[in-house]
Amino acid sequence: MRLPILSEDKFHDECGVFGVFGHPEASNLAYLGIHALQHRGQESAGIASWDGATIHLHKAMGLVADIFGQQALAGLPGSTAIGHTRYSTAGQSTLANAQPMVARTTAGQVAVAHNGNLVNAEELRAELAAKGALFQGTSDTEVIVHLLAHQREGGVEDRIRGALASVRGAYSLLFLTERGIVAVRDPLGFRPLVLGKLKNGATVFASETCALDLIEAEYIREIEPGEMVVVDAEGLRTIQTLPRQRSGKCIFELIYFARPDSQVFGRSVYTTRKALGKRLAIEAPVDADVVVPVPDSGVPAALGYSEQSGIPYDLGLIRSHYVGRTFIEPSQSIRHFGVKLKLNPVPAVVRGKRVVVVDDSIVRGTTSRKIVKMVRQAGAREVHVRISSPPIQWPCYYGIDTPTRKELIGSSHEVAEIQKYLSADSLGYLSLDGMLKATGNDPAHFCHACFTGQYRIGFDAGDVAQLKLFDS
Amino acid sequence: MRLPILSEDKFHDECGVFGVFGHPEASNLAYLGIHALQHRGQESAGIASWDGATIHLHKAMGLVADIFGQQALAGLPGSTAIGHTRYSTAGQSTLANAQPMVARTTAGQVAVAHNGNLVNAEELRAELAAKGALFQGTSDTEVIVHLLAHQREGGVEDRIRGALASVRGAYSLLFLTERGIVAVRDPLGFRPLVLGKLKNGATVFASETCALDLIEAEYIREIEPGEMVVVDAEGLRTIQTLPRQRSGKCIFELIYFARPDSQVFGRSVYTTRKALGKRLAIEAPVDADVVVPVPDSGVPAALGYSEQSGIPYDLGLIRSHYVGRTFIEPSQSIRHFGVKLKLNPVPAVVRGKRVVVVDDSIVRGTTSRKIVKMVRQAGAREVHVRISSPPIQWPCYYGIDTPTRKELIGSSHEVAEIQKYLSADSLGYLSLDGMLKATGNDPAHFCHACFTGQYRIGFDAGDVAQLKLFDS
Amino acid sequence: MRLPILSEDKFHDECGVFGVFGHPEASNLAYLGIHALQHRGQESAGIASWDGATIHLHKAMGLVADIFGQQALAGLPGSTAIGHTRYSTAGQSTLANAQPMVARTTAGQVAVAHNGNLVNAEELRAELAAKGALFQGTSDTEVIVHLLAHQREGGVEDRIRGALASVRGAYSLLFLTERGIVAVRDPLGFRPLVLGKLKNGATVFASETCALDLIEAEYIREIEPGEMVVVDAEGLRTIQTLPRQRSGKCIFELIYFARPDSQVFGRSVYTTRKALGKRLAIEAPVDADVVVPVPDSGVPAALGYSEQSGIPYDLGLIRSHYVGRTFIEPSQSIRHFGVKLKLNPVPAVVRGKRVVVVDDSIVRGTTSRKIVKMVRQAGAREVHVRISSPPIQWPCYYGIDTPTRKELIGSSHEVAEIQKYLSADSLGYLSLDGMLKATGNDPAHFCHACFTGQYRIGFDAGDVAQLKLFDS
Amino acid sequence: MRLPILSEDKFHDECGVFGVFGHPEASNLAYLGIHALQHRGQESAGIASWDGATIHLHKAMGLVADIFGQQALAGLPGSTAIGHTRYSTAGQSTLANAQPMVARTTAGQVAVAHNGNLVNAEELRAELAAKGALFQGTSDTEVIVHLLAHQREGGVEDRIRGALASVRGAYSLLFLTERGIVAVRDPLGFRPLVLGKLKNGATVFASETCALDLIEAEYIREIEPGEMVVVDAEGLRTIQTLPRQRSGKCIFELIYFARPDSQVFGRSVYTTRKALGKRLAIEAPVDADVVVPVPDSGVPAALGYSEQSGIPYDLGLIRSHYVGRTFIEPSQSIRHFGVKLKLNPVPAVVRGKRVVVVDDSIVRGTTSRKIVKMVRQAGAREVHVRISSPPIQWPCYYGIDTPTRKELIGSSHEVAEIQKYLSADSLGYLSLDGMLKATGNDPAHFCHACFTGQYRIGFDAGDVAQLKLFDS
Repeated sequence: MRLPILSEDKFHDECGVFGVFGHPEASNLAYLGIHALQHRGQESAGIASWDGATIHLHKAMGLVADIFGQQALAGLPGSTAIGHTRYSTAGQSTLANAQPMVARTTAGQVAVAHNGNLVNAEELRAELAAKGALFQGTSDTEVIVHLLAHQREGGVEDRIRGALASVRGAYSLLFLTERGIVAVRDPLGFRPLVLGKLKNGATVFASETCALDLIEAEYIREIEPGEMVVVDAEGLRTIQTLPRQRSGKCIFELIYFARPDSQVFGRSVYTTRKALGKRLAIEAPVDADVVVPVPDSGVPAALGYSEQSGIPYDLGLIRSHYVGRTFIEPSQSIRHFGVKLKLNPVPAVVRGKRVVVVDDSIVRGTTSRKIVKMVRQAGAREVHVRISSPPIQWPCYYGIDTPTRKELIGSSHEVAEIQKYLSADSLGYLSLDGMLKATGNDPAHFCHACFTGQYRIGFDAGDVAQLKLFDS
Repeated sequence: MRLPILSEDKFHDECGVFGVFGHPEASNLAYLGIHALQHRGQESAGIASWDGATIHLHKAMGLVADIFGQQALAGLPGSTAIGHTRYSTAGQSTLANAQPMVARTTAGQVAVAHNGNLVNAEELRAELAAKGALFQGTSDTEVIVHLLAHQREGGVEDRIRGALASVRGAYSLLFLTERGIVAVRDPLGFRPLVLGKLKNGATVFASETCALDLIEAEYIREIEPGEMVVVDAEGLRTIQTLPRQRSGKCIFELIYFARPDSQVFGRSVYTTRKALGKRLAIEAPVDADVVVPVPDSGVPAALGYSEQSGIPYDLGLIRSHYVGRTFIEPSQSIRHFGVKLKLNPVPAVVRGKRVVVVDDSIVRGTTSRKIVKMVRQAGAREVHVRISSPPIQWPCYYGIDTPTRKELIGSSHEVAEIQKYLSADSLGYLSLDGMLKATGNDPAHFCHACFTGQYRIGFDAGDVAQLKLFDS
Repeated sequence: MRLPILSEDKFHDECGVFGVFGHPEASNLAYLGIHALQHRGQESAGIASWDGATIHLHKAMGLVADIFGQQALAGLPGSTAIGHTRYSTAGQSTLANAQPMVARTTAGQVAVAHNGNLVNAEELRAELAAKGALFQGTSDTEVIVHLLAHQREGGVEDRIRGALASVRGAYSLLFLTERGIVAVRDPLGFRPLVLGKLKNGATVFASETCALDLIEAEYIREIEPGEMVVVDAEGLRTIQTLPRQRSGKCIFELIYFARPDSQVFGRSVYTTRKALGKRLAIEAPVDADVVVPVPDSGVPAALGYSEQSGIPYDLGLIRSHYVGRTFIEPSQSIRHFGVKLKLNPVPAVVRGKRVVVVDDSIVRGTTSRKIVKMVRQAGAREVHVRISSPPIQWPCYYGIDTPTRKELIGSSHEVAEIQKYLSADSLGYLSLDGMLKATGNDPAHFCHACFTGQYRIGFDAGDVAQLKLFDS
Repeated sequence: MRLPILSEDKFHDECGVFGVFGHPEASNLAYLGIHALQHRGQESAGIASWDGATIHLHKAMGLVADIFGQQALAGLPGSTAIGHTRYSTAGQSTLANAQPMVARTTAGQVAVAHNGNLVNAEELRAELAAKGALFQGTSDTEVIVHLLAHQREGGVEDRIRGALASVRGAYSLLFLTERGIVAVRDPLGFRPLVLGKLKNGATVFASETCALDLIEAEYIREIEPGEMVVVDAEGLRTIQTLPRQRSGKCIFELIYFARPDSQVFGRSVYTTRKALGKRLAIEAPVDADVVVPVPDSGVPAALGYSEQSGIPYDLGLIRSHYVGRTFIEPSQSIRHFGVKLKLNPVPAVVRGKRVVVVDDSIVRGTTSRKIVKMVRQAGAREVHVRISSPPIQWPCYYGIDTPTRKELIGSSHEVAEIQKYLSADSLGYLSLDGMLKATGNDPAHFCHACFTGQYRIGFDAGDVAQLKLFDS
């Protein structure tokens, strides 16, 4: 049996999207773009291109570099393309759910790439099925595609607006139409989506700026929450703006999901993570000899912690480059070597030392526990765990794959209990207030429901008995 | 066409070897062992096991995790196994060269796993072919296998000694025989090889200690240069020791090849690299604002440089997790994005700063040049390059895949010219003396021919006109 | 490029269907059933099973034996299953068109397997698309699936009837429902469909009786044209019978498509083909030395011709067992060896002889021409071609893949011209009247539009200017 | 588990060989040639070509049409090529045994394709291994390759002669050298080998003439037993002829192995088989209504039987086109449908009739028994079995894969017992004398050891206690 290793104790984002309009090598650029976004989803990937006559599509399960070869890219002609890279839990991970998805509507062909999660998908799915819609897979995105196909009137932009009118939840969407690209972000802007420009004037959309950097596109701005942007032969224009007092940008993008070299929600991810680490050093100081990050996600916060505290930073844990998403656990007596495949301590760094291990978050606690044990076995005198975000206590309904509440150690246990479970000499989390301060001091700006349970949109899911809506 | 990206401007080690004797899950352990050694070679991998009756073999091109599944491992029964992971240049990378290789000799079946390079392979190959030996591939290891098959007398240990008598060069070898495992290291000990022990008493051999760590084996000691160790039902014993004044351990293992969490040649790799960085800070100081490593290989030296110099360390370059060994360069106008796929700067870290970029070595200079440009474009005010080893000037004949002399920028250009080529504001290499001091201050201990041309064994290769043998 | 060889000069049937209700190894039986029906379509195959809770589906491009292994069959549990094997022209041959197809309707899950062709598919497809239906592929069957999904009322049998109400054309259909199997044949009964029974009492449906023979099922009767049969926990019953004066059973099934060991339309295919050959000997006698069949399809008619005429039958053409559906034509000067790959003459049989070559039909004439040349080169003194059906002059719209009218040599040329084109010493076709006599002497019973242009249902296709409807 | 179906109750030939010298599309022709010879072995296939500088080789497990595509053939340049197609029993069927095999000798590169079997292979293999030869697989051919590589003196033709000097057994060999092709047949000429010529003057070698027919090459003559022929830039010449009183041509080639459209040993296979059937009708007459062949191998003998006896021939058993070499037996209760997958009776032909079933041979008797049962169940009143060769009683050591003696029903049982086992109303074999008469009436000409135990060469195999050598 193949077990996920890398993913073992982290949240997972569901998708990355990328689009380019107006470049003779659109699909090549899309290929590079989704390659840069692959940390947002590595289960499947796809590209759709429009060559003026037809939408070409290539998608498959697997990694971008394995899915796309010279031949596949040659089969995606045209100067407009959108791409998608997808994560999903094992049970739902099938080609039928891979994206982009294509619809042939009476207003022409449309391909869709989606990052996010709808909270009323089941309801919409049931309504559509009752009308005779045949679903191929189980993804929310297919709901959007069917809604679009059921629109009867107006141009393709009107139909997209019509389709989205009944949708609630998180969505950063790219639509490839016969005329160009339509980019939409949900009214609360849960997931990121940025606009860029290439030297030749081509317009680019991407989940994160790291995709712009790779193709040397200039970062222009975020697509705003509730905004619908169209780019076609007539140029780029906003065709919808929603009045907005507050937004629900996912704070976990800054804490863990996004690549550290990206700008997300207008902020440098790396700088933000260092700021979280600094704040953590103020809130949860400890008398220690060395600050050791859990690589790679804990590195910026550990550097911030070290900088603020003055305790030297050193690389006491080495991460293997060769641990992929899946690995066969050899049977029987030698099981349970677990996290060792991914991380190995450097005894020379930790031996006899009081070590501060810094990570960005704790989900189930199993990995953190193994790390503490490993560092201690390598000779550390004390092991202090510091986490650059508050305890995760609530599942996400807006596009992140999370365990149920009872699996979240931050929900089921007090901090003191967690410390005991980890066998750490001390455990410190960043406070909610500290996290918000380090991310710009605007509580209305971010969705932080996974820490607070203050959900910004109601939903029809079942495992949270009483929903605390953020501002109702 | 698939181009190597990761490998672009680095030397490559050729192999990792691993063996276990006396454990009911020998092949499972070998699987884990070669997984941990995969940084030493990722073109092909294989495992051979002995179940008391026959040698079972599974090998293929590709990564360890892709080659071995439950079924493949189930097909490798027995309590003795050896494994191998291999790098090779494109032209020679075929299954015929994959290891372990198996010979059916009149003293029984033998499987061989080899790390190193013979300097008289061509000569031996010609002699063997004249005697009717049929070669399947082009590797040196096959020469050893044929030599072994041509031995007529004695037990298998005698035949291994006989076969190796005519061999010159670098070899850390594991032989799986019908009785156990024979481990041999060449008289100068170019490549590492360590001995370990599992909790159940099983004996383990591995190129590096990181493989022992993963399976929780205890590190006992190095196999000595010139030593032949046998483990079988009668126990573990040294059956050959060569008198030895000097050795030729590859100093580049400490500088770049080995995993930082390994012990190699009795030294912590990580600590050694930090020491090289500290020494570099003393020899090549610079007035700057931030020390930025080229990840991941430059990280320990950069930390050492920062610690010694007091200039803050920060992560100004982010490495993508998804760059594998191969990548299709999209055609035409968007080529040459090169190193950007692997590395992306963090503008917030370097903007307006005087940056010290620290790396372990420069081979051709092309990657370093792109990095300097990239950091400058991200806003750095000054870019100073510091290298934690001397200029590489000579090819290796002892198991490392290196370019020819004229491709080595350290051979064809003076340091000032290299600085100009890199467009760096300054360039500093560590001195030979500094390197030797940081690695234990024993010039006779290490082979450093790639820096000095002082080769320790003559060879029959052609592109070095005058060979400066180290001590003749 | 891969060129079809076997298919070069024959019509192609589109599909075979098979179903079993009430056997613990339903999918294993379906596997055998579609294996026996593979001559009806070898581009893709699939099986759907119902295990009381969910419909399981496995389908792929390729041959039955390659598609289904132990594992695939193990994934198809349950005591009800339907299977399908499909032919299609190159352009439409994709997995999206493979069958069975599955719909999740509000009356439960349904899988569909279809043999035939709808004449109003394009019209229905357009209507459905306007209602928002998303089509994955281009097959008629998907139209039926969408029609079914758009039914709102009644049980699943009512919905199937409702869906078929708007459909015109040829269809022998098996529906796997949550309750059992529904089998339907179109009102004119173009394509065959038979009912059988296993020893354990399980009900079986199949396109031809050869599938019953393989699994040792007893042949009960044909499903009648216009009949809808249901088998479920309550037993087997006819739930619809259409009053019927005439039918449109495809006479070409008897002439070429069906396997000679099958019973089709209540007649032995083999005996019918021999009768056609006997009739041909009466209508088109010739003074000759040997009757040689074009194997394998011409064998029964040749035996009949020999029997009637008294001219000895002998095997002057040998068919290779190893010619599959596709073959790479080696390039350049050695092209055009064409039919030789499939057929080779036996000079000892034909040398110096006056040879009657008997085949079942001529489509384009290219293969027949090569055969005549081949037999003559092998030494035949005279080559007389006899065809056990009339000239094919019209395309089929009821489920057979045919060339356009102008490609049909029987449409564009007189018999004398065809003889000249074939370089035959004489050419004789069976007359329409003779064909009908040999097949039971009931002109209203069979569709023979491919010979007469007397189509039984109007259609919306374009390449026949004036449609001669059979009885209007 | 995959079970062979086609092979169930027949002997198997081991190989087909093909060579062409002097044609710009040599490998394309070799591809066609081995395609035509595929009935001689369908487990693996390969082609080696010489382009004036190097030998190119492509070989794989599987069918010719699957192994060779445009790309594979493009990788086989040059105007000389040899090809091979191979059968082997499951245990020995590996790529390591696939042919052609290539040796790099000091007289240049050589590729070898072999049809036959050596009787002293084990002895030679042991001698070579003692000299240090490393064997990759288990085939006799590799022994020849090693013998060749161990030759030290003379040109390549001398070395081939030298290598073959120590070899005993059956071999029709093609050697591709740097100069041309060397074709050799063993002194007794067990396996066929013919010489042909293309229109452009190119020389062709093939196991059977059907391969010449496909590429429109003219048949020149057999390579004689003991003859060595060389074709190179200097033309075609015989460089060795052995004085010869008798030969050992395999009579089973005429009875079953060869394609009926081939000429083998100078005789038409088809005509010979009909003659065997006629002779059988004289020796074993029966009062019956219809003669039914076991298709396809029994067809010519059945036609002969019918012609001689006057009993009408008819096709009472239909053979499926889709039965390949392997087929998964579905598990449990529906096993054992066995031969039904391949053959199905036509009830209309046999019902109420006294049927003579004609086949070429009986090996184990299991298939014949199922056929008798099947024909009787289809309604035959009587079933008489007639076999166009004598009872097979001895294994073959000269290149045919046969069961052991005790598995041969003709060895372990009397004819009356076999009849009873088959449940046939009567059973008649052709006599040895009748067989020899029908094949030319020269007992010294053919090896018929499988019928008589009169082996022509001694061997070192174990399961025949006392060897009756033919003429010692």
